Amino acid sequence: MKSFIIIGHKAATAPFSLNDLPGAAGRMDILCRCVNAALFLSHDLRRDVRVYLVLKGEPAPPKLICFDGSGVRYLNPDERSAASLIRKALEKNAQGFWTESTPGVSVRKGGLGDLLSELNRKITYLREDGGDVRGRSFEEPLFVLGDHLGVTDDEEKSIEKYENEVVSVGPLSLHADHCIVLLHNEMDRQENA
Amino acid sequence: MKSFIIIGHKAATAPFSLNDLPGAAGRMDILCRCVNAALFLSHDLRRDVRVYLVLKGEPAPPKLICFDGSGVRYLNPDERSAASLIRKALEKNAQGFWTESTPGVSVRKGGLGDLLSELNRKITYLREDGGDVRGRSFEEPLFVLGDHLGVTDDEEKSIEKYENEVVSVGPLSLHADHCIVLLHNEMDRQENA
Repeated sequence: MKSFIIIGHKAATAPFSLNDLPGAAGRMDILCRCVNAALFLSHDLRRDVRVYLVLKGEPAPPKLICFDGSGVRYLNPDERSAASLIRKALEKNAQGFWTESTPGVSVRKGGLGDLLSELNRKITYLREDGGDVRGRSFEEPLFVLGDHLGVTDDEEKSIEKYENEVVSVGPLSLHADHCIVLLHNEMDRQENA
Repeated sequence: MKSFIIIGHKAATAPFSLNDLPGAAGRMDILCRCVNAALFLSHDLRRDVRVYLVLKGEPAPPKLICFDGSGVRYLNPDERSAASLIRKALEKNAQGFWTESTPGVSVRKGGLGDLLSELNRKITYLREDGGDVRGRSFEEPLFVLGDHLGVTDDEEKSIEKYENEVVSVGPLSLHADHCIVLLHNEMDRQENA
């Protein structure tokens, strides 16, 4: 199992319009592209992947949404498709435990700290000054990535409570979904070497 | 200058609804994600990149659209933003020569053969059985990628008229936009080594 956590600092925590993902939904487009990058192969899904979204925007933050590649249904590659499943999850009355909203998609109340505590694993944290991802080996990796606002000091403190390493995917600063593509490629190459 | 050509076999050639990019617009979502992958850095654009879209869907195929990173404006990373600029280009009365529809976006009548003839350069063609991209050097590269339907035999014949090489980005079959991210990463690493 490979897990990705993406932090959406402005991402809406109540149902939103599918016609304005960047604006009213608080850069939900970023999270949707991350779901795509984490789960899609050309004509298949990556069944060994879980994607966790941390939604920190108004009106009811924080909330967590999980896409489980082994069970997800009704997901297509376009942003609007992932957004539609996120919106359905936000229609649920979120509790402090996971509730499935559609097959393979679950929602709960909680923030990054709650999620890291629940998973309780070594964290691989993406930051531009990290060590090169190429040639590293990953076992049951848990990757944490920020959105357009990066990762805050408070979030870094949550991460530092766990065994962790900091990696970088290349010399330029990239969008989170592009980083996920590059992480997968490194793992794909190692698994098929 | 790095150039990417993406072939949209079903992509609409007249203005379409932004609310159904995969369906009525003929998998326009794929082309929009390719524009994003080719042009976006974290908080910047890749100014040395041109993206050419070959639209082969109804009702007026084929048409070509070019996004020029050095001049493009009003482009945001979400699919709907690229789609909106493509739609504006399709509102133009396309001729056999390039017409700018919005800053940095142009449209003309024509297909893959016309475009390759105009560019008249060595082609790097993405295919799963190609040689590994890692470690290759690229000078003024022109990459050609297919959409969910790949590249047809006729398109391969057009490509084979030019000096060409076939490369692969990894062991699994990936979406075209994910391939573009991986190609950029290889070039970024070489330019910043």
